[in-house]
Amino acid sequence: MLHIDKKAIDEMESRYRGNFFNTISGFKSANLIGTIDKNKQTNLAIFNSVVHIGANPPYLGFILRPTTVERHTYSNIKGTGFYTINHVQEDFIEKAHQTSAKYEKAESEFHRCGFQEEYLHSFIPPYVKQSNIKLGLKFEEEHPIKVNGTILVIGSIQHAYLDEKYIQNDGSVDISLAQTVAVSGLYQYLKTEKLDKFKYAKP
Amino acid sequence: MLHIDKKAIDEMESRYRGNFFNTISGFKSANLIGTIDKNKQTNLAIFNSVVHIGANPPYLGFILRPTTVERHTYSNIKGTGFYTINHVQEDFIEKAHQTSAKYEKAESEFHRCGFQEEYLHSFIPPYVKQSNIKLGLKFEEEHPIKVNGTILVIGSIQHAYLDEKYIQNDGSVDISLAQTVAVSGLYQYLKTEKLDKFKYAKP
Repeated sequence: MLHIDKKAIDEMESRYRGNFFNTISGFKSANLIGTIDKNKQTNLAIFNSVVHIGANPPYLGFILRPTTVERHTYSNIKGTGFYTINHVQEDFIEKAHQTSAKYEKAESEFHRCGFQEEYLHSFIPPYVKQSNIKLGLKFEEEHPIKVNGTILVIGSIQHAYLDEKYIQNDGSVDISLAQTVAVSGLYQYLKTEKLDKFKYAKP
Repeated sequence: MLHIDKKAIDEMESRYRGNFFNTISGFKSANLIGTIDKNKQTNLAIFNSVVHIGANPPYLGFILRPTTVERHTYSNIKGTGFYTINHVQEDFIEKAHQTSAKYEKAESEFHRCGFQEEYLHSFIPPYVKQSNIKLGLKFEEEHPIKVNGTILVIGSIQHAYLDEKYIQNDGSVDISLAQTVAVSGLYQYLKTEKLDKFKYAKP
């Protein structure tokens, strides 16, 4: 077994290190975050860092890179107080990945990358029409990470949209059935195959 | 498409809501976090919330539930300043899941659930011998989440252990090849199958 110590980490070539550490923490979710600014300019960006914060009431978090460059997702969320999280499915991974390109603010990734905006129940930001599972969130709090200037953004789930057929008897959503993909690092998309499902564990 | 609004969320039965919101945010990583206290009592617990914070230098975060009940992982990390993150593989998902049971502090999940402690390069907490990919981390900072008392814990990666055959030319770790599993919610384990791998996207 290879041992990579602090010195070896420091000596890695920058992109190599980026790939290594983006993949080595395990599989991630693939979600498109939809936002809008006060001039109705929309933005759509793929994130692999959405994390569960709590269920009652329901909260999700995600990590934003440092705001040293313009981050449209961040400024739109701060501007309107709302955003949408939309699952990425197998049939549109290439388009979803393309939202990670650095478009100008005047160019919406919805239009540039082939996604349709969907406005539901007077919610301010657009959902992704093509997504089988979509969530509407309200911004709640943010935590600047001291070590590297990234930001943890936390929101509460206000709306959920999905076909009833994806909801199992115990409330679990069968996201494999909904064709939601997983991601390894920033570039590798994967589909999943169910192994075992266990129960609440007792000693 | 079913619309679940705030009222419907509030009215969900508690376990049903737990399952619904633990699954609806997408696939998660499955990692065993290994710790030790000052009396050499070890602890091992499964987490599905490990998230990438940065690659240069490399940082990972994970979410801990509120400390209103005793959290051995948290107190051990605060006590020694170090912890290990170990991938969960297909061949030991049942044992790994069992570490989520509430054992007494005097009972180590390493022993109770059938894992072997491995001490490497004078690092204080134990790694999981059976894991194909293991990381040694140093505690860096924590962020109490206001809305529900969970805690974001951030650490820097000091050591990585894995077989060279899992490392691709660009530095990416092929965690599917290492048999690392993904999780949906708290109970469903999945294996993955690669779809496309894309490049850094440009407009």
